[in-house]
Order: sequence, then structure tokens, then C-alpha cells
Amino acid sequence: MPVISDQPLHLTDFNIRTLGPARYVSPLQLAQSDSVGQAEFTRDHDRLLFHEDWELVRGFLARGEQPPTLELAGPRERLYFRPADVRAAIVTAGGLCPGINDVVRSLVMTLTHHYGVHEILGIRYGLRGFVSEDSPPRRMTPEVVKSIHREGGSLLGSSRGTPPVAEIVRSIQRQAINVLFMVGGDGTQRAARAVATALREAGSDIAVIGIPKTIDNDILFVDQTFGFSTAVSLARSAIDAAHAEAHGAFNGVGLVRLMGRDAGFIAAQAALASGEANFVLVPEVGFDLEGPNGVLAHLHRRLMSRKHALIVVAEGAGQQYLAEEQAGSGTDPSGNAKLGDIGRLLRSRIEKYFLDRDLLVAVRYIDPGYTIRSAPADASDSVYCQEMGQNAVHAAMAGKTGMLVGRVRGRQVHVPIEVVTSGRKSLDPGHPLWRAVLQSTGQPERMTNSE
Amino acid sequence: MPVISDQPLHLTDFNIRTLGPARYVSPLQLAQSDSVGQAEFTRDHDRLLFHEDWELVRGFLARGEQPPTLELAGPRERLYFRPADVRAAIVTAGGLCPGINDVVRSLVMTLTHHYGVHEILGIRYGLRGFVSEDSPPRRMTPEVVKSIHREGGSLLGSSRGTPPVAEIVRSIQRQAINVLFMVGGDGTQRAARAVATALREAGSDIAVIGIPKTIDNDILFVDQTFGFSTAVSLARSAIDAAHAEAHGAFNGVGLVRLMGRDAGFIAAQAALASGEANFVLVPEVGFDLEGPNGVLAHLHRRLMSRKHALIVVAEGAGQQYLAEEQAGSGTDPSGNAKLGDIGRLLRSRIEKYFLDRDLLVAVRYIDPGYTIRSAPADASDSVYCQEMGQNAVHAAMAGKTGMLVGRVRGRQVHVPIEVVTSGRKSLDPGHPLWRAVLQSTGQPERMTNSE
Amino acid sequence: MPVISDQPLHLTDFNIRTLGPARYVSPLQLAQSDSVGQAEFTRDHDRLLFHEDWELVRGFLARGEQPPTLELAGPRERLYFRPADVRAAIVTAGGLCPGINDVVRSLVMTLTHHYGVHEILGIRYGLRGFVSEDSPPRRMTPEVVKSIHREGGSLLGSSRGTPPVAEIVRSIQRQAINVLFMVGGDGTQRAARAVATALREAGSDIAVIGIPKTIDNDILFVDQTFGFSTAVSLARSAIDAAHAEAHGAFNGVGLVRLMGRDAGFIAAQAALASGEANFVLVPEVGFDLEGPNGVLAHLHRRLMSRKHALIVVAEGAGQQYLAEEQAGSGTDPSGNAKLGDIGRLLRSRIEKYFLDRDLLVAVRYIDPGYTIRSAPADASDSVYCQEMGQNAVHAAMAGKTGMLVGRVRGRQVHVPIEVVTSGRKSLDPGHPLWRAVLQSTGQPERMTNSE
Amino acid sequence: MPVISDQPLHLTDFNIRTLGPARYVSPLQLAQSDSVGQAEFTRDHDRLLFHEDWELVRGFLARGEQPPTLELAGPRERLYFRPADVRAAIVTAGGLCPGINDVVRSLVMTLTHHYGVHEILGIRYGLRGFVSEDSPPRRMTPEVVKSIHREGGSLLGSSRGTPPVAEIVRSIQRQAINVLFMVGGDGTQRAARAVATALREAGSDIAVIGIPKTIDNDILFVDQTFGFSTAVSLARSAIDAAHAEAHGAFNGVGLVRLMGRDAGFIAAQAALASGEANFVLVPEVGFDLEGPNGVLAHLHRRLMSRKHALIVVAEGAGQQYLAEEQAGSGTDPSGNAKLGDIGRLLRSRIEKYFLDRDLLVAVRYIDPGYTIRSAPADASDSVYCQEMGQNAVHAAMAGKTGMLVGRVRGRQVHVPIEVVTSGRKSLDPGHPLWRAVLQSTGQPERMTNSE
Repeated sequence: MPVISDQPLHLTDFNIRTLGPARYVSPLQLAQSDSVGQAEFTRDHDRLLFHEDWELVRGFLARGEQPPTLELAGPRERLYFRPADVRAAIVTAGGLCPGINDVVRSLVMTLTHHYGVHEILGIRYGLRGFVSEDSPPRRMTPEVVKSIHREGGSLLGSSRGTPPVAEIVRSIQRQAINVLFMVGGDGTQRAARAVATALREAGSDIAVIGIPKTIDNDILFVDQTFGFSTAVSLARSAIDAAHAEAHGAFNGVGLVRLMGRDAGFIAAQAALASGEANFVLVPEVGFDLEGPNGVLAHLHRRLMSRKHALIVVAEGAGQQYLAEEQAGSGTDPSGNAKLGDIGRLLRSRIEKYFLDRDLLVAVRYIDPGYTIRSAPADASDSVYCQEMGQNAVHAAMAGKTGMLVGRVRGRQVHVPIEVVTSGRKSLDPGHPLWRAVLQSTGQPERMTNSE
Repeated sequence: MPVISDQPLHLTDFNIRTLGPARYVSPLQLAQSDSVGQAEFTRDHDRLLFHEDWELVRGFLARGEQPPTLELAGPRERLYFRPADVRAAIVTAGGLCPGINDVVRSLVMTLTHHYGVHEILGIRYGLRGFVSEDSPPRRMTPEVVKSIHREGGSLLGSSRGTPPVAEIVRSIQRQAINVLFMVGGDGTQRAARAVATALREAGSDIAVIGIPKTIDNDILFVDQTFGFSTAVSLARSAIDAAHAEAHGAFNGVGLVRLMGRDAGFIAAQAALASGEANFVLVPEVGFDLEGPNGVLAHLHRRLMSRKHALIVVAEGAGQQYLAEEQAGSGTDPSGNAKLGDIGRLLRSRIEKYFLDRDLLVAVRYIDPGYTIRSAPADASDSVYCQEMGQNAVHAAMAGKTGMLVGRVRGRQVHVPIEVVTSGRKSLDPGHPLWRAVLQSTGQPERMTNSE
Repeated sequence: MPVISDQPLHLTDFNIRTLGPARYVSPLQLAQSDSVGQAEFTRDHDRLLFHEDWELVRGFLARGEQPPTLELAGPRERLYFRPADVRAAIVTAGGLCPGINDVVRSLVMTLTHHYGVHEILGIRYGLRGFVSEDSPPRRMTPEVVKSIHREGGSLLGSSRGTPPVAEIVRSIQRQAINVLFMVGGDGTQRAARAVATALREAGSDIAVIGIPKTIDNDILFVDQTFGFSTAVSLARSAIDAAHAEAHGAFNGVGLVRLMGRDAGFIAAQAALASGEANFVLVPEVGFDLEGPNGVLAHLHRRLMSRKHALIVVAEGAGQQYLAEEQAGSGTDPSGNAKLGDIGRLLRSRIEKYFLDRDLLVAVRYIDPGYTIRSAPADASDSVYCQEMGQNAVHAAMAGKTGMLVGRVRGRQVHVPIEVVTSGRKSLDPGHPLWRAVLQSTGQPERMTNSE
Repeated sequence: MPVISDQPLHLTDFNIRTLGPARYVSPLQLAQSDSVGQAEFTRDHDRLLFHEDWELVRGFLARGEQPPTLELAGPRERLYFRPADVRAAIVTAGGLCPGINDVVRSLVMTLTHHYGVHEILGIRYGLRGFVSEDSPPRRMTPEVVKSIHREGGSLLGSSRGTPPVAEIVRSIQRQAINVLFMVGGDGTQRAARAVATALREAGSDIAVIGIPKTIDNDILFVDQTFGFSTAVSLARSAIDAAHAEAHGAFNGVGLVRLMGRDAGFIAAQAALASGEANFVLVPEVGFDLEGPNGVLAHLHRRLMSRKHALIVVAEGAGQQYLAEEQAGSGTDPSGNAKLGDIGRLLRSRIEKYFLDRDLLVAVRYIDPGYTIRSAPADASDSVYCQEMGQNAVHAAMAGKTGMLVGRVRGRQVHVPIEVVTSGRKSLDPGHPLWRAVLQSTGQPERMTNSE
């Protein structure tokens, strides 16, 4: 569900930096380009249109500009690194997300089996692993990663927070790492960019490849991040459980808090998949609790007519209500603003509202967060992670750096990290997904009292 | 996992009351007793030994007493009620539990298809449905219940709390109900007993059959209650998720709160099934948090050596720690003492303990409660519920009353309600189950500092 | 995973026919176009580029042609039908596929709740329901479809085969249907086109909207059909089971036959998701069984070195081996060529090959076909089906006909049925998906002996 | 669901042989017996009544006999083996079954962590591993088995068939094994008994402990074998799939073949759990296909009235119909008679029956066999396996031999192998389980034409 910004992008926005001229022949046995019906190498000038709406593309052409395009991911015929010289490292940072182990497995398998790279370090517990003494890197081999995709979590461990970039750079240099894969969210990708820049300035020929990880699916320009499909599946189950609870109680109110700090994608898709939600609250669409057109009044009407109701709320929704309680609580180690718990707030506000009106309601609150984050990837996320790991290795071996691998409209592409970290993707209330949610829930398009 | 009290029981303890002499021939086509290899009627004098330990049985015999026995459940050859005269009612009360819909389905199917009973009322939202105007009973037919076992929750709805018995009795009489099935926990079964007694005193020939529902598995003398198998399955998944979270973080502590107000069966079995738990805290085994042999010190040692740990806690464990905060918070509508949230308390105590020692830990707290309660029954619970529904109908049609149907060592029996409600089953720390938990987790048998 | 033909397409290829001028204002409360951040109506001239590769688009421009574009799906501001006059019908035909019930539910919900259409007929058991006396149509309401998405199969029933088009047309006219939704595969869509044409020729203003259903994902131009995600998930589980069987036996050979008559998409994706397959055989890539570079010789080598192996085969692969046995066996009622069972043939050929060499192997054959086809849709398919049902209704109400709704690169579009039925999508061996399969399995790119 | 033979059993039937006097103090920290509320050692004279029906027990007493009793499993205070001298071996033989890995894990964990045994060999691929050169034993440690319970199959591998006992004995002696755990079915347990006898005769003090594995649940005297709960769960899913297929087709017939060579337990329980089956065919209840009271005639009536039907058949049912085709096909390597495929036979007979009558039916045949056998254990099987592994180690360390560990009415006991292998448990048609199946399906008690 890509939401494409309407600001014009220029071709150069998406140009990828390479460490230097390709010097080695790839060991992959693929056809020369232009063969028909055979797996083949990808060429840098095979590019994908960034926009697919004809009006937008026509606009560029009318202005005499070339519409922006993206470089396709895939194996390159010539490499920058000689495989025998590569010493690779993998780090996974930030919160858990289904598929991390699949990505790590794919990186190790591709490096080993396809390029013959045998020096692979697994950095422990996120970026702190570059600077801490207590958890030395783990040697990664196909035997180690063979079955890890069947389990959730991260084999390497993860953590939030970024040590000083200079220390990371020193650690990379000291360990003689020349290919680095950084799996992580927004903060990690910003660190990746800083590390790539610092290395370049230091004259180090080290490829830094980002692999975006965010269960919220809020990475700009990338159509779906890994783990999102699994998260929606499990979120749907939580909604179904809340529905059973609400339906089984007199004036039962099911309340499910889902992931989504800044973007309501999981809440929207899971509510749609379930078909049982009556109200979906997301960060992108403001709402009032009180007042004649507030959420509580609508909930009241629903309960009077149907005796049960189901509310799905993204963790980042309705933050204005938590502002006072949370004043000054600051940020977490990843630098994200600490969010109050909108689920608990809603529960107490609902209970108070109906108590004030002498009505008995039974609120059932479900917060499946960690259960979802730690699940193994579903089949479609596994496929995605496997392809992404393969393409990240192809990019690194070709000497690309400062970029990440992502999927745009089903095709894997290269995107410069600075482009991706320039903002966050959010759910456009005008997007068909939100329209489908409104149609499915029957909730009012606006639940605010203001004019 | 029956835990058998060592107090002597007398034969009469388990004698079942019948409304009066059986007057009608059963419409079921079953063999006469003593046929070989054919489904047959059950006779009241087919009884099961209550004790199975030879020492205990020998003790009774040595004292010249007959060891206590239980009446087997099953279809009787002669009935007290003429099927065409029966007007049955079903009520489901208390918290949700996997399998409620299976029981209701089995009751309706057996009444209709096997006995030809066509008047079946579904009382709405628990016992309040007898006295409230807002939710009239629902007419129950095979068509209505055909697929309800695929969904969790309760089709009829449920609620906690017991209206005055006299009002329930009046409602039963006014609606001309003569067979009543009460699916519910301890409180509901006490109400069932009171209703049965009041009806008998009023001279009403009404069969009241209890079907015990408690996800905690704490019904006395019954070896496993329905929903427990499903609950353990899902609780294991929650533990596995917490393990992935703990394993994926530096000094990660997974903390899972499970059902179990007075009995740690779910926590013990799920921890055993998972094989990942390091500490299991249950109501039956006291523990200290602080001190050299307290839980926190043991957790500290575990983290130092392994960098991650997993704690499973039953909701009723460690209540002394919540006493102050909770002083005066009273009881819920079912009359159960309101429990503080031991999971949240543990989380904050753990965080404080390590903060005081300047150690970074990452606590991941999972409380899967409602998700488990609202799940559909697994196959083994479905089979159990189906058999129990069939046997409850057989008992009612034969004119039994004031009893409940339960499974003792795999066989379905009749037990007088007053026997069952005389106490609660709990996990004996000397039982093989707890021994297996200690062996599997490696936790100390005692985590208290006192001598 | 769209595989885009390289033959040039012209703009008109994708032009959609409308029954006539839009005469009524839509009852949907949506914003006027060009509002920001609000759900809004879709305009016919909002079109999507069909090609997204810049080289291809530039080719059109260089030739002075406009590149082909697709009409976007979505609610139109003006309708052809007055909702009160609509009498809609839904038919589901062909084999089962996860999500059929979701589509039916979405059609009924959208017609009823959003357009106020209350006359909806469910045709029973596929196209035969138009001409058979034994199964009259079912009246469809929100109450009927409320929970059907939780169950697999088709509430309406389905069947293969197409009665004479003239009879279908007469049935439609006799029942006064003016909006018809046809959910089905290739054969059904060809019937839909014929019906639409015949109706137009007969001067009947009836909207015929196709909803493509093929678990094989082989619909041309559509990037993924509903049910495919669920199918891949379940197919992965079957592969995992075969792996456990193969791994648990000495010289164990796991053999899994998956859906895919003409296209190996399910086999390829499920094998990739599992990460355990050693050989993937698909219809698009020929292979020899015997000979030094045949499948059996490669299997032999694998067993010698690893003692277990895993083969995934699409049902349409290696059909030349079944030709003789099957000569003259003809077509099934849908007109598809009857396929021999490549799984059973492989099993016997493998057993014979090793028996001839005096080697003991244990072949474990799993064919999960019906289990997969009859499963309920997973979350992502549910979302897809829900959107597709909504858009099919929007298209019909706007008076579109002879078209189907499909998803192209994540966006829902309208495609003329004749364009879609002009061929079948298949897995291009040069596509990144197949490349990823080769890399993941390590199987040779070619397993034929010919030069 | 124990089916208790009515032949009188004598106390001595269940007496367990010990290698010699206990010489060492157990390293387990358990309470002395008779402590209250503490995990404690089990004493050999703590025995369980074998019969629990009062009539049966009274019969023994009336004859002046002591009723038969069983020795309880559990840790003994004194051991026969000094842990430091133990060299243990584990072998898994026969077909796969959910839980094998759980048992192996529990054996290794208990030996290592609780007794300090560090020499543990894993014999590869069943009993052939004792005599083959190609697969040397694997050294087993907690690290190796830590996560194997999350995967199905057998880490050690398995195979059918028994090499000459003398060769197995020589292999055991040559490898200096003194404690042997044999996980397997009927054939394996017979081998275990022969090995134990031969070792005793050879004067070797080697403990041989059997752990019964049969997915069919047909071990005599043991109430449920491990893997059975998982198998019923998955079998129910297959039945549900067949139901969806049958329901979705005109005159759809779902046909599911389940495990059960000699016993219909899985078919009966899964059908009951599903609630959708109309006919359940098991080996214990004969049936005719043809004739006025045959299965086909009943199926015909069902289809005429409901248009779909569901048949569940155990693989060992109706073998008379396969006799001719199979004449002389002999036995499999385990010595089990090769069964024809009753599922395929039924399918072709059903198709022919209706073709002869010019009726179109759609038969959907599902055989989930290997998928079920290779699944990981569910929570309740995992708990069971863990307890059984612990108790098998306790028994071996105490010097017990020639016995197996099993669960009788929920309690773990020791049973001499020769008692258990004297017959097979089967489903008594007079048992409440079968009665519940008849009630749930509505199928006639007899479907034979004979008088």
C-alpha cells in the first residue's frame, strides 16, 4: 500500500553510490543479459519508474524532465570485492519483528554458497555489540543458521540505541570488516548512513547495506516491510479474540491495542481482515473522545443497539490525550518519543463514561504486542526476507554502499538510505485502504466535534 | 492430574439424588446390558472406585468399610421425563473458557436428535438472563448451534454474579422449565445447588444439572475441566513468544502471567510443555522476592550466566505482595476476591532491583489472558465437551438433579454438587507434575529466606 | 510477481465498456475529487501505467505512442443503476480456493450497506445453478454472510463446467437479474465474457463483472490472485512435513505435489518459504528423469552425500511422462486437460531407480491439494478479497461490464475480460523468483541431457 | 480411553524385574517419603489398582485374591548404577509420531542435569543403527537437544525392521552400553524384550527400558500413547477440510483416510471433535459396502436429502475388500501385514455406485497421514513425553529392566514388556467413545446385511 508523496522527485534522488569500479567476475553461473527464459544478471541501467500514475509521469515529460526511476536489485556480473577477501558482518538492531532470522539466514547462505565468502561475523545484541566487551561476535556458518527461520526473535540478539558513530567505525576497522549488513528500523538506518559516510571520509572501502526492519510498515517509498504480513495475521487473531470476548458479555467492549507508533497500517489491515471491528483509531486520523460526535458517544449508540462493540487502536493514536500524563517522559534508547498507553487510557475513559451513566459495560483489553513481534515469519514474509537477503549480498559484492534493499510494487530495488530516512510513510486517509476500513467498520469518517 | 485428598470419603458422599422413579422407556436404541461389543445403557450400580491407590483402598477394607465409589455417567434405560413434556434451558455463566459453545451444541444436539426434545431455551448473558428484561431467552435448535463449536466465546453470552436465588427459581417456574443445565464455575455451581434445593423444597420436579467450567482446572475431584487443554496449548505459545523476546535482548527477561487464581495447573503444564521456563511461580508455593534465596537473587544469577531468563507466573501467586496496594478492593461480581496484578508488580520489582544495581535489563511482559479464554476448543477439549453434553442430557432425562457431570481418570461420572463445591483443587507440591516442573526448569524447590 | 509479456499493448486494450451514461448520484458519502486527505471518488481518467520499466515506456514514447494504461477501480460519483432497481446475483464456479466466502461476503455487505441494494441472489453450485431445478438460488443478506469468511469452501457451492451460454442468458433474464458477479477461473471468465456479449447483443442492460479465482495464480496481467497467499502458507507446511519425514528416515525422500497445472508459482514460493527443498519441478522448466543430468541422477548424488532429499513438484510438471498412460483421457468438466498424477509417477520411478541399484530408499509422498483449497483465507487474502468485492460492486453500479477486477502491483484496477483470457500467466525462468529458487535449493539450472 | 480386558490378571503379571540390589544413593534432592507437600521419592510398594470398577475389584476380594496392581513410576531413593559409570543409548524405531524428539530431549536432559550422566549415544535410523556401518551413533548433549521438541520427526532418524537380536546384543556389548532406551511400537518393544532376555542370559547387567510409540494408540493397558493428542488435532483439521470440500460441491462426498491399522481411536476421536462426519468406519466394526443396509445405500440416502456427506475411514477398516487385490503382498519391514488402501478403494466404489445410477457425485479424498506423523507435538503431548522421559531415566537408574513406562488413567507406571506385547488394544464398540461417535454422526449401529 505505497503512499506516494506528490512532491517531485528527481532521477538523481535514487542514484546509488558504488565504492569503485567493478574488478572481479561474479562466480554466479547466470546467463548473459538478453538471453530469453534464463536467470540472468541484472544491469544497473535496468530501472523501474518510481511513479506509475500516468498523470504524474506525463507531468515530468511535459516539463521536459525524465521521470524518476529506481535501480533494480539483483546479481551483478562484475564485483567490487574478491569473495576470498571479504569479511562480512551482520547486525540486527531495534525491536523484534518476524523475519529477522530469515534475513540473517539468507545473508549467510548467499554469502557462503553463492559467493564463497567464509568470514561472517554476527554482531551480538544490536549496535552495542560493536562497543561492548561482554558479548563478542559469533562466527556465522550455514550450519548455525540452517533452521533459525523456524523460530521467532533474533538469533544474534538485538537492542535499541546507537553508540557514538566514531566508536562503531573504529570497531569495524579494528575487526577488518569490509562488508556490513545492518538490519534495523529508522534509527538503525540513520546510523548506517552516518557510518557509511564516516567510512567514506576515512577512505575505507567498506560496503554498508541497510535492510529496513519496521513492523509498522512506515518506511518511506518501500511498499511493505518484512514481518508486516505476519503481524497483520496475528493481529487479526487478537481482534477475533476480543470479538469473542465482547460478544460473550453483556455490553461487552473488546479493545485491542496494536503496533503503529506513527502509522496505522497494522490496525487498518487487521481490522479489515477480521471484519469484526466497529472502530479503528489510527495516528493519522484525529478524534475526540467526548462530545456528541466523539468516540464515546458513537460507542454508546453502538452498545445500545447491538450490546457489544469492538475497538482497534494503534499505539500512536490519540496521543494528545496522553500528553499531560506523559509530559517530560522523553524518549526511549532508540530516540523514539515514549508513548503513553492509549489502550489503558481508553479503557479507563470508557469505564468512567458508562459508570457516569450508570450503565454496566465489560471492557476486555488485549495488547498482543510482544506476542506478535516475536513470532516466526509467515510464508510470504519468509519469501520476502529470503529475496531481500540475497539481494543485499548481491549489492554489497558489487560494491554498492549507503543504500538499502526494499520492495517497491513487488520488485526489489536499491534506494539510497538518505532518501528513505528523510521522512516516514503514513496511512493517507484518502487511500483506498482507509476507505475500505470505513466501509467495513461503518465508523464515521470523522469523530471530532470541531467545525 | 487428579490430586486426591487424603481425608476419608464415604460411599454416600457420592450418592446422586433422583427426582423420582423412572417412568418412561428411553427412545435410544441401545443394547440391553451385558451384551458384548455393543453400545449399551449404563446402570446406576456400575460404579467406579474413587481411590485407585491400593494402600488407600486396603485401608477401607481393613476397617470393614466399603471404599467410596462414583456413579458412572451414561444413558439410562428408563427416564423420569417424557421427552415431549420437556422444556429445557441452558445457561452459561462466569468468565469465558474454550469449549462453552461445544457444550451448548452437544446439549442441543443430544436433546433434539436423541430424545426428541424440541423446547430448548438459551438464557442470555449468564444468570442475569433469568431476571433481566433486556435480553429474552433464545430458542435453541440444531440449526442455530450447528457451527458454533468453531468459534470461541459463548453464543449465549455470559456474565459474572448471581441474582437472588428466589428470583431465579421464580423465573424457572414462570417459564415452565423442567430441565436446567448450568454451565459455570464455582459460583455458578453453588447457585445451581441452591436452586436445586429451593426447587425441591418448593415441590418442583425440576432437574438441575451442573457442568463445571473453570479454565484453572481447580474443580475438586474432577481430573481435568474442559478448556484446560486448549488453555495450556495457547499458554505455551505465549511462553515461547516471551522466550524469543528474552533471548533476543541483552539481559532479556520474559515474564508471562497466566490464569490460575488459586491453582497453578496452567502455569505448571504450559511451562513444562514449553521447556523454556526458568522460574514458575504458583499460588500453592510461597516465595520471597528479596533476600539471598529470593526470586530476584536467583534471577540475577541466571542473567549473569545466561543473559536471558524466563518467568511464568500464575495470577494468584505471591498475593502477599499485593495486599497493601489492594487493601479494601473487595470482590468481583462472582464473589471472587479481586486479585492485584502480580505480573505488573513483578515487572516493576525486577526493573527496580536491577536499576538499583546499575544493570540494564529488558523485561518483556506478556499477559495472554483474554486471548486464551476466548479461543475455540482444541480437538481434545471438543471431544470432552461433546461427551459431557451428552451425559448431562442423559442424567437430566433420567431425573437426576443437584449433580454435575465430570471426568475422573478419563471416565465420565456423576458427582453431587455439594461435594464438589466443598473446596477447590490445587497443585500439590509433592505431585509428580510439580516435580517435573522443578526438574525441567531447574528452579530451587524453595525460594524463601525463612528457616 | 507479475510476468509482463514483451509484446506491445495498446491503450485501447484496456478500455472498459460501460452500459450507458451514468444517471444517478452515488449514495456514498465521499469527498469531491482533489480534496486532500479524504476518502474520495475515483475518476475514470485516473489511470495507471501498465508497464513500469522505464525502457519499455520510453520505447512507446519514442514511437510517438502513449504507453498503455489501466483504469483504476474504486467508487464512482455517478451510477448507471438506481440502487432500488438492482437485482444482483452472485455465482462461484470451478475448484475451491481460500477466500471465496470473503469475496461473497464483501459483495453482499457492500451492496447492502453502501448502496442499499436488497435483492441479492446466490446461485447454487456454480453455473449449473442457472439451469438446474434441484438447487434454487438462495436469498443473500448480511445476516447470512456475517461469519462465512471464517470458514473455507464456498457457502454457495461450486461446480466445474459451463452450460450453454444461451441457457444462462435466458436464466438471467427470467430471474430479472441486472447485475451479475461471476467468481471463477479461466473457464468461468470465458463464460462471463460470452454471457456479457450475448446480453449486449440481446439489448439487455446487464452488468457482468468477473472476479478472477485461480489458486495457481496464473491469471494474465494480475499480480496475485486471492487465495494464493494462503495456499503458499499451507504448502510450506506440507513441505516442512515432508522434510521431517525425509530427515527422519535413512535415505528418506520427501515428495510433495502442489497445485499448478500450467504455472509453478505455488511450488516456487512455498519451496522458497520453506528453505528445505532440494528440487523444485515446475511446468515451465522441462526436465529429464533418466540420464546423467536427469533428476534421478541428481537425487542419487544428493542422497549419497546427505542421506535425505526433498522434492517439490507442481501438478503440471513433467507431463510428457504421463502422456502415454493418459492418451485419450480427455478433459474435465471445466475443459481443462486431465493431468496424470506426476507425484505418483515420480514416486514409482524413484523407487524403481534405486531398487535397480539395490539401494534402500524411503519415499514419503504428500499431496495436500484439497486441504489447501478448502482452507479459510489468511489475513492478507481476506483483505484482498474484501477490497475486491467492494470494487466489483463499485464497477457494477457504475454500469461497467465485461470486465474483471484485479490487483496490479498492489492497486486495484479494471481489466477487460477478453484481454485477461487471451492467455495464461506463467513463471518466467528468467524471473527473480525462479532465480531465488535456484539459489535456495542449489538445484542445477537445467536437468536435461539434450544439448 | 482404556479398554480393560476381562480376563483376570494376577498381581505378578505386573511385577518388574530389577538388575540387582540398589547400591548407590540418588543424587536427586528430594524429600524422604511421608513428608507432606514436597516432591519426594517414589517407593516400589506404592502401587496403583489396575482395575477401577468396583465390581471387578470386589470379585477378586471375594475370591480371596489381591486385585492386580501396578508399580508407580518416579525417582527412586537408591540406584543400581553409579551415574559416573553409565553409558546410555537411545534408539527411535518405526514410523514417525509427534513427540519422539520430546522424549529424546527429556531423556538427555534428565540423564545429564539430574543424574550427571555424560555418556549418551544416539543410535541412528532405528535398530539398523546397531548393525550398520554407514551411520555411526551421535553423541547426545543438552546443547544438541535443546530445541528439537519444536520440530517434528526424529532427530536420530528411524527405520522399520529388526536386525537379528544377537547382532543387536553384540553391538550393545561392544559399545559398552549399560542403559538402553528403546522408543518404538509393537515390533520394537518385542525386540526390546528379546534383547533384555538375551542380555540377562548372557549375564550382562544392562537396563533395557521401552517407551511405547504408536500413533494409533493401540498399546494394551496404556491409556493414551504420546502423539495421539496431536494426531487427533490434525486429523480433525483434515476432516474439516473434507467437509468444506464436500459442502462446496453438488453431491460432494468428503472422504478422509486416517491412521489406525488395527484400532479406530484416531478416526473416532477426530470425527467426534469435528462434529461433521456422517460415517466413521473402523477396523473393529465390520460393514458391507453393497446391499440395502450397506454403506453405499446409506450414503445414497444421505446425499439425496442433504447433497453432501462426509466419511472418515481408518486405514485398517474393511480389509476384506482389499484381500483379493492384496493376496500375497506380505508384510512391511516391521512385520506388519501390508494394508491395501481402503481410501482409494472406497473412492472408486463410491464413484462406480453413483455412475451406475447416473448420478453425478464429486468425491474429495484426503489422506493426511505423513503430514500428521511428522508434526511437532502439541502441548499436552509435550508434557506427557517430558514426564515419560524423566520416568524412563528414573527406572533405568534404579536398575529396572524389561519394562516400559506408560500412563494409566493419568498416572505414570511401569509395565513389563511381555504383558504389553501380549496383544493390542482396540476400540470396544460398547465403549462410551464409540457410543458418542454413533450419537454424533447419526450413523446406524450396524451397516451389514447379514442377519
